[in-house]
Amino acid sequence: MIRVGIVGYGYWGPNIVRNFSKTKGVIVSAICDLSPQKLNRAQLDYPSISITSDFHTLLNDSTVDAIAIATPVSTHYDLGLAALKAGKHLFLEKPMTETSAQAKHLIEEAEKRNLTLIIDHTFIYTPAVRKIRELIDGGDLGNFYFYDSTRINLGNFQHDVNVIWDLAVHDLSILDYLFQDTPLAISATGAAHVRGQPENAAYITLFFNNNAIAHINVNWLSPIKLRHTLIGGDRKMILYDDIEVTEKVKVYDKGVDIAGDTESIYQILKGYRVGDMWAPHLASTEALSAEIEHFIDCIEKNIQPITNGAMGLRIIQLLEAASTSMLHQGAPVEIKDKD
Amino acid sequence: MIRVGIVGYGYWGPNIVRNFSKTKGVIVSAICDLSPQKLNRAQLDYPSISITSDFHTLLNDSTVDAIAIATPVSTHYDLGLAALKAGKHLFLEKPMTETSAQAKHLIEEAEKRNLTLIIDHTFIYTPAVRKIRELIDGGDLGNFYFYDSTRINLGNFQHDVNVIWDLAVHDLSILDYLFQDTPLAISATGAAHVRGQPENAAYITLFFNNNAIAHINVNWLSPIKLRHTLIGGDRKMILYDDIEVTEKVKVYDKGVDIAGDTESIYQILKGYRVGDMWAPHLASTEALSAEIEHFIDCIEKNIQPITNGAMGLRIIQLLEAASTSMLHQGAPVEIKDKD
Amino acid sequence: MIRVGIVGYGYWGPNIVRNFSKTKGVIVSAICDLSPQKLNRAQLDYPSISITSDFHTLLNDSTVDAIAIATPVSTHYDLGLAALKAGKHLFLEKPMTETSAQAKHLIEEAEKRNLTLIIDHTFIYTPAVRKIRELIDGGDLGNFYFYDSTRINLGNFQHDVNVIWDLAVHDLSILDYLFQDTPLAISATGAAHVRGQPENAAYITLFFNNNAIAHINVNWLSPIKLRHTLIGGDRKMILYDDIEVTEKVKVYDKGVDIAGDTESIYQILKGYRVGDMWAPHLASTEALSAEIEHFIDCIEKNIQPITNGAMGLRIIQLLEAASTSMLHQGAPVEIKDKD
Amino acid sequence: MIRVGIVGYGYWGPNIVRNFSKTKGVIVSAICDLSPQKLNRAQLDYPSISITSDFHTLLNDSTVDAIAIATPVSTHYDLGLAALKAGKHLFLEKPMTETSAQAKHLIEEAEKRNLTLIIDHTFIYTPAVRKIRELIDGGDLGNFYFYDSTRINLGNFQHDVNVIWDLAVHDLSILDYLFQDTPLAISATGAAHVRGQPENAAYITLFFNNNAIAHINVNWLSPIKLRHTLIGGDRKMILYDDIEVTEKVKVYDKGVDIAGDTESIYQILKGYRVGDMWAPHLASTEALSAEIEHFIDCIEKNIQPITNGAMGLRIIQLLEAASTSMLHQGAPVEIKDKD
Repeated sequence: MIRVGIVGYGYWGPNIVRNFSKTKGVIVSAICDLSPQKLNRAQLDYPSISITSDFHTLLNDSTVDAIAIATPVSTHYDLGLAALKAGKHLFLEKPMTETSAQAKHLIEEAEKRNLTLIIDHTFIYTPAVRKIRELIDGGDLGNFYFYDSTRINLGNFQHDVNVIWDLAVHDLSILDYLFQDTPLAISATGAAHVRGQPENAAYITLFFNNNAIAHINVNWLSPIKLRHTLIGGDRKMILYDDIEVTEKVKVYDKGVDIAGDTESIYQILKGYRVGDMWAPHLASTEALSAEIEHFIDCIEKNIQPITNGAMGLRIIQLLEAASTSMLHQGAPVEIKDKD
Repeated sequence: MIRVGIVGYGYWGPNIVRNFSKTKGVIVSAICDLSPQKLNRAQLDYPSISITSDFHTLLNDSTVDAIAIATPVSTHYDLGLAALKAGKHLFLEKPMTETSAQAKHLIEEAEKRNLTLIIDHTFIYTPAVRKIRELIDGGDLGNFYFYDSTRINLGNFQHDVNVIWDLAVHDLSILDYLFQDTPLAISATGAAHVRGQPENAAYITLFFNNNAIAHINVNWLSPIKLRHTLIGGDRKMILYDDIEVTEKVKVYDKGVDIAGDTESIYQILKGYRVGDMWAPHLASTEALSAEIEHFIDCIEKNIQPITNGAMGLRIIQLLEAASTSMLHQGAPVEIKDKD
Repeated sequence: MIRVGIVGYGYWGPNIVRNFSKTKGVIVSAICDLSPQKLNRAQLDYPSISITSDFHTLLNDSTVDAIAIATPVSTHYDLGLAALKAGKHLFLEKPMTETSAQAKHLIEEAEKRNLTLIIDHTFIYTPAVRKIRELIDGGDLGNFYFYDSTRINLGNFQHDVNVIWDLAVHDLSILDYLFQDTPLAISATGAAHVRGQPENAAYITLFFNNNAIAHINVNWLSPIKLRHTLIGGDRKMILYDDIEVTEKVKVYDKGVDIAGDTESIYQILKGYRVGDMWAPHLASTEALSAEIEHFIDCIEKNIQPITNGAMGLRIIQLLEAASTSMLHQGAPVEIKDKD
Repeated sequence: MIRVGIVGYGYWGPNIVRNFSKTKGVIVSAICDLSPQKLNRAQLDYPSISITSDFHTLLNDSTVDAIAIATPVSTHYDLGLAALKAGKHLFLEKPMTETSAQAKHLIEEAEKRNLTLIIDHTFIYTPAVRKIRELIDGGDLGNFYFYDSTRINLGNFQHDVNVIWDLAVHDLSILDYLFQDTPLAISATGAAHVRGQPENAAYITLFFNNNAIAHINVNWLSPIKLRHTLIGGDRKMILYDDIEVTEKVKVYDKGVDIAGDTESIYQILKGYRVGDMWAPHLASTEALSAEIEHFIDCIEKNIQPITNGAMGLRIIQLLEAASTSMLHQGAPVEIKDKD
């Protein structure tokens, strides 16, 4: 039986508590938050779980095996480091930390103590993203051409991080998982429309080997909500629309037919291929539930999680590079530090 | 009565002939094309219009008042210049020329001879774009925040120009018309997925005064066809979806409510405004027909067209800047030469 | 303070408990269900509410002021009658009873004892239906032409009642509320595709005065889920799509223009009117919450609820007539017993 | 070479002329219309085809092999009969005639003279309907449960026939083609909202063997245009949406799983089956072009067309029965005369 303490009962915390609570082999032993109102709400929702406003109670409780942190990003490093130093396995909200230096330190600390560190990149555990990875691994897509994602809506303005750290982080993690490749360079542009607030609209391009390209459009100020991603390959193309209830993933047998020696520097376009469309049935598993089961499994078997610290770090490096590029109106930033 | 000769009977030419033919006060006196097959088709479609494969026949015909050119962009400068030098008013397909130097030369030539020069930026004459301009001029939108356009589909790969010159040109003209403002700088990224062919996917950001931003996503290799543009202001927001049959323009009373002195460098977000949506009825006029009537009117009254040479030149300058930026993975290019 | 006992903790019961629990001035004193599993779940969800499998506990508890019943329709009459006879106000799930005779009896019993009886036709309390009623009352629609509803999906097959009693009941209540008129006659057709089970697909037409007509299409065996209703009048038309998240109600300025003396028996169609579309913003109130507040208010002020017993009875009479017509392949059934 | 004379150059006639003109082995020898304006337009569109306002010119021209009639339905019988009596093959617009007696007479006349008679039920020749028939014939659908079609829009009010004869005729022909089964009975309801004009909204149910059922919803007064048809079987379900540009036919692996001896009168629902969706690629052939080629082929090979007179007659019988039922508010009408 793994005993877990959960820190932060704001927007996402209640989902974490709910899912840990229903996971077999897990006991949620305490919920911690600085806000009396939030603690009060936690108490009403879970009368049998003890509450505390003092994080050290969890650190000092030797029966607590793991700590889950769902607090603002600016606190991730300090709280995470303290948890690891207290010998607790760590479930850490995304983005992992404010800087890649912090992320590296957490990774080292977890390794040194042989503790499991998982970063909560929830999308990686959705049936849709799992199915797309399966299609890519099976060769259905062929060579990767482009990934083009639009993730916009009205709301959830953040005050401490810009829209890239809030929304593009999802696409960066999905890209990392799907293609297992680090981009060569990144270019980002954006704008802040409320004076003194972080950028609320941003556009990011990532350059990969072989002319593959990824583009991410994020916006907190759109009149409509869109969550769609196009993935193009030379064999098939995919539309992943997360707003669709039943047909989130559509696979298109579309593309261009090309003539000529693939070794030549020139290719000739012979025509367009327009075939069937297919929407595979997806399981209705809740992603966070699958992720928490995976976390528990990694603790018990002492194996690396899919969304481990190294992945969390790669995402932070891309977020840093994108922010730097955005400051310079899209000037490209090379991604050097690849591990 | 204005007599018009039309050059080029390929993809767009037949639409130009059809619309000139039905315009009052216009006679289409000849159709010119180098391809015997296309000339033959023109003859079948319009038995009463004379055909020729020799452009000089049109130039030398003193009864011809105006020439319309719908040929590949690489020929625009030579054919257009010859037409102007022969004293003909000029209806020129977009993009205007291959370079801004060529565009400037055509403008000078038209001015010197007091001839009407119109560039065929057809979208400017659509009821949808007209309505949006009306809403902006009426103050409905408020301060301009962002323009975000997605114009993607499978097909129409070009061999001589990249996807920016083919598709983004529409958005650049719409932006120019709607906001009557030249961007300060431009950043563009893109990729060519068929070796030796021009870029088929591109992403462009334009930076305007007051943190206003525009973004354009164009792609010849998308499994689905999208044509949607979001326009955000501080009062209202607009969704312009050109694929919709009856509700192409939707106006949303949505946004953020901001507190604090507008003079201060900080503003505080108080909340989100979510109100009614309204889709104004649009006339069903064909844009090209309205454009041709405007061209004839400009000739007769000796006035400047809305899409005149100066506008055509501004678009070429942006296309050049975008292509330059794309070569440097998004490095921003300032727009200096503003008139 | 009103103390409420809730009977039935199956599909809908938990929503009723949740909404009564959060209503000011209400205490949920007990939850009753025959199933130990469901009682157990209720206990876990609401540790502070007492549970019982014996309905008489609620009847005999003199501190219980009202009883809410969310059990299968076959039990509504017996349980409801017992509750009223025990002097409890009654919140009764729809459809009210299995027969109109039973419904009349419940109404009499409630009247005799001066108890509040509300039928849970939840749709009447949605912001969408409220807004449509407001538009109709304000004259926006003009004369009522037609109501045409499609309410289909895969699932929720019932074993004791056919699809009319399960799904069409919603439209019958909406029609009753919107137009406050009883139909003259009803014709219904349908089919059962699983042998020995009730009809899973049905089509109902209701005839009103002045050629107004309503049509309802319900199906438990559709591959896609649809919930859309068209309402046509001579001035405006409405599309109510309950699946839409933000624009559930659209008002169209569309119709036909008619010439000639409106007193004549002939009218001439002059043309079509195609104007703006408008989607009013709707409040995000939960319908069941508004309904329960209304129920409490009716108890305290001793006034009739909007969805009172008389309305519940009218719906039962239409359900009976529709079922009769369905048995005779659409042969019309007059609605005589109009109260 | 088959020489064809075409009668009627109104709404549909130009499409017929255009398609006959481009069909190999066909010469359009004359266009006939009573309206000088329409004849004038025909002359402008086709300068090389002779025009006439006198139908007898076509009848008396011995070089004319076939006559195509695209005039109002009230003239179909007289014109069609005259054409057959003059020994011409006949391409007749739908609905075939005003009465089944007239339809039978035309069939007899064509048989007697060994002439080809085709009724222009165009939908039967669309790639979408062809594909659905292929899926049904291949057993994909399994046992037929229901067909549920919605065909509504604003416009095309007719003055001589009601909306059933104008719009439902399409679904009746599609049903006939797909299932090759005659219904046992029909029930129809409807209403006329413009006084003195025919019914503009109607709802039809057709009863088939084995509890299979079809339903058709047609309306000339809807604010939105819908063209969707659901087809349910025990193995697969189909959504045919004719407004979709690229994915008109979607095949769903959805349904219910049933237990128990299929010979028993009771079946038990075990659960719902929710699997993949698949949208087969459809050819982009124009239906009318395929139909005309088929007509010419039938003439040359002396074989029966798919949409022959017997099929046209079956549709007329259903239209008559539906109209009769509609007069009696849905009272069912048995379909006796099945051949």
